[in-house]
Amino acid sequence: MNEKKLLPKKTGDLSDWYTTVIQLAELADYGPSKGSMIIRPYGYAIWELAQAALDERFKAYGIQNAYFPLLIPMSFIQKEKSHVEGFAPELAVVTHGGGEKLEEALFVRPTSETVINDSFSKWVQSWRDLPMQLNQWCSVVRWEKRTMPFLRTSEFLWQEGHTIHATHQEAQATQKWAMDTYQDVYENFYALYGMRGNKSASERFAGADDTLTMEHLMPSGKALQSSTSHDLGQNFAKAFETKFQNKDGEESYVWQTSWGLSTRSIGGLILAHGDDNGLRLPPKLAPVQVIIIPVVPEGELKDYAHTLAQELRTKGARVQVDDRDDERMGFKINKWEVKGVPLRIEIGKREVEGGQVTVVRRWDGQKDSISRDEFVQGIQARLDDIQHMMFEGSKKLTQERTRKAANYDEFKQLMAQSDKGFIEVCWNDDPEVEAKIKLDTKATSRCRIGDGEGIDFYTGKPAKGTWIFARSY
Amino acid sequence: MNEKKLLPKKTGDLSDWYTTVIQLAELADYGPSKGSMIIRPYGYAIWELAQAALDERFKAYGIQNAYFPLLIPMSFIQKEKSHVEGFAPELAVVTHGGGEKLEEALFVRPTSETVINDSFSKWVQSWRDLPMQLNQWCSVVRWEKRTMPFLRTSEFLWQEGHTIHATHQEAQATQKWAMDTYQDVYENFYALYGMRGNKSASERFAGADDTLTMEHLMPSGKALQSSTSHDLGQNFAKAFETKFQNKDGEESYVWQTSWGLSTRSIGGLILAHGDDNGLRLPPKLAPVQVIIIPVVPEGELKDYAHTLAQELRTKGARVQVDDRDDERMGFKINKWEVKGVPLRIEIGKREVEGGQVTVVRRWDGQKDSISRDEFVQGIQARLDDIQHMMFEGSKKLTQERTRKAANYDEFKQLMAQSDKGFIEVCWNDDPEVEAKIKLDTKATSRCRIGDGEGIDFYTGKPAKGTWIFARSY
Repeated sequence: MNEKKLLPKKTGDLSDWYTTVIQLAELADYGPSKGSMIIRPYGYAIWELAQAALDERFKAYGIQNAYFPLLIPMSFIQKEKSHVEGFAPELAVVTHGGGEKLEEALFVRPTSETVINDSFSKWVQSWRDLPMQLNQWCSVVRWEKRTMPFLRTSEFLWQEGHTIHATHQEAQATQKWAMDTYQDVYENFYALYGMRGNKSASERFAGADDTLTMEHLMPSGKALQSSTSHDLGQNFAKAFETKFQNKDGEESYVWQTSWGLSTRSIGGLILAHGDDNGLRLPPKLAPVQVIIIPVVPEGELKDYAHTLAQELRTKGARVQVDDRDDERMGFKINKWEVKGVPLRIEIGKREVEGGQVTVVRRWDGQKDSISRDEFVQGIQARLDDIQHMMFEGSKKLTQERTRKAANYDEFKQLMAQSDKGFIEVCWNDDPEVEAKIKLDTKATSRCRIGDGEGIDFYTGKPAKGTWIFARSY
Repeated sequence: MNEKKLLPKKTGDLSDWYTTVIQLAELADYGPSKGSMIIRPYGYAIWELAQAALDERFKAYGIQNAYFPLLIPMSFIQKEKSHVEGFAPELAVVTHGGGEKLEEALFVRPTSETVINDSFSKWVQSWRDLPMQLNQWCSVVRWEKRTMPFLRTSEFLWQEGHTIHATHQEAQATQKWAMDTYQDVYENFYALYGMRGNKSASERFAGADDTLTMEHLMPSGKALQSSTSHDLGQNFAKAFETKFQNKDGEESYVWQTSWGLSTRSIGGLILAHGDDNGLRLPPKLAPVQVIIIPVVPEGELKDYAHTLAQELRTKGARVQVDDRDDERMGFKINKWEVKGVPLRIEIGKREVEGGQVTVVRRWDGQKDSISRDEFVQGIQARLDDIQHMMFEGSKKLTQERTRKAANYDEFKQLMAQSDKGFIEVCWNDDPEVEAKIKLDTKATSRCRIGDGEGIDFYTGKPAKGTWIFARSY
């Protein structure tokens, strides 16, 4: 802990800032094997708050949690053709168990469509068994060459929803509902404004007919693909013979969706909201919403701090008192700023005598001195204010850095700008064109945000909707 | 679903009853690879209720959740001598990742002492950083030759707590607290009475100086080791150089504990409480506490059922209405009996007209007809009654089947009984004797339940406390 480096400026070397703030705020640490990560308590507590928000919404919709095996027979991945092409290069493979070489090797799940379809095919008989709507909270492993904490690691935590339906329409409604839920949680918990739409033919999930995505603009000008929801059509159903007897007594393949949101979202949270002094956490996902620091950590100042903490807790706030006697005030202020706690309360003699509190807002450093009672009564409104301010900040920034290009020259000019971001174009979803653009500019399509007609910015032919392009993580 | 077999009598072939009831109640299913299991929504919901009870208690004690990597370098397991002996034969090994052979193979965690000590050794500098008290909810993999759903599977879900302390005394207090917590949750949620004590030298955890255990008697007369809490001394600290500067400025090794409770506990719940008609779930862990079945699933009966359900929900009960129109009443009654729902309400014309409900208690089949208002008002007390009754039943049964043996002849006679169970003896914890007894009778020591002096039942020499012996799962 003594050897910790100083936090560099965020506006300087962003990736150095990013990896340093993760260490300093004690969000995560590097694991012992290549590309692995340890999520420390402070980082995990953020994930638990996000989990609770998602899980509550899933259950209200009738999604049930379940658990499927981590290790899957190699033969399973071969069954769905485009799925194996997408995932085979990223697999971790178990070849030995209990001291013996296995007859059939097992892969560590990178996602669970295959093993879950194997069960669906056994559990479903008739239309009366449908829909089946499952979710699991688990970790998955994908062998990555270039890794970065939270954003891209060899193992990450996520939820994966898997549903099967009697009709395509029902499956599509669930695909959309999942993305509505992600958008709700991103906007109201992560305080992140994102672009939402459909993936291009070359960017969609391996095995899906259609993929919905949320894409968040990061300060680097790159997009973070932050969650996806797939219409899997009948692709896995056909590969795994997942059939049911429909109302007319005929055998039909089920229609299927899958959708996921992972700890990658915490990477987005750090990058988008942080500043030169460290993290800035939105109150809804802050493990500590209010930190109270008595200037002298003893006697009546300490008592005042703890009583205040109790009062705030009865109002539903997550509060901590920093009354360590081995750290200076300046060190403490710095520590809690780095950790991004939304509100800091400093308690000195003046505050105790006047029945006041001095409140510093992490988001913009605004300092207030108000009566203690007023502060306690208004704590939730004050936290909501910050939450709202942060979302509006994210929205404004994203919108400012989303620029239209009418043709490829304009597109390349925008990509060359230092404050580049999202580029909005009319385009016709041609995979060959997308490959060329990527080669030239490193940008790819992120999502189709509108159906509007127009002229394709690259070919000048009729376009298929309005799209967002950007470089991506 | 149509091909489901009938439930055999529990008093007949217990293991056939066990695997059949798990399928019929839709708790779990077999996974595609050897010894793996799928936890279906109904089984997973039980686990979520147990998790909530444990997690709340952990957090109240100051335990923080975190997440450590699934895949651990092979060199790590070699560091603690007795740990490698215990776990090496059960490892699943990843040899390939991303299409290439790995330089160093990785094992899938069977438990996480090694990888967590690697982090502890980096994070701890001084006594001011102690204690560090972490927990993780995850799955672990142990290659097992003979498997059985929930009781012994190649992968299972659990929580593993890991704490480090400045003094041995503090570590021991935490080891004891963890076992207090398990006992609390077993008694008040699982409604299971168990024997608690220390493991013998040959039965303790690989790497521990002392292991506390809870052992529950199953109807087969075998014991289920249901949770353990270990005093790891400084064994891992020395292997991983986990040192800190103490108050006197000297370098010391930390003192360490670990403790875990797994989905195995659900196996115990099924075995101990079930009867010839299926599961009997204690209300505190029942995903559905009250099932309401309108005799005719339409019109005023259906409305009455749903209104009643809403009223019960406002009283905090977990309620479901079975108003499917494609299943007969008898089928429904059977289905919810198999699923072990504590209370079944049948709504007929008579109930609607009289403002009554007919309540059937799953535990003993007792049938009541009472006023609807009285039932709604008293729902929590009624559920508490059942919970209490079930625990008392478990306690009575365990105590009746716990018998004392003064010498080895008596011991062998008790082991030959058809209703054998726990055997209480005075013993001196001699590993060679334990091995001989196991060879003779298949029984091993389960735990030391008392310190009392006495005569060793095997050797006639002075004993080291009172012990429970039994066969075990």
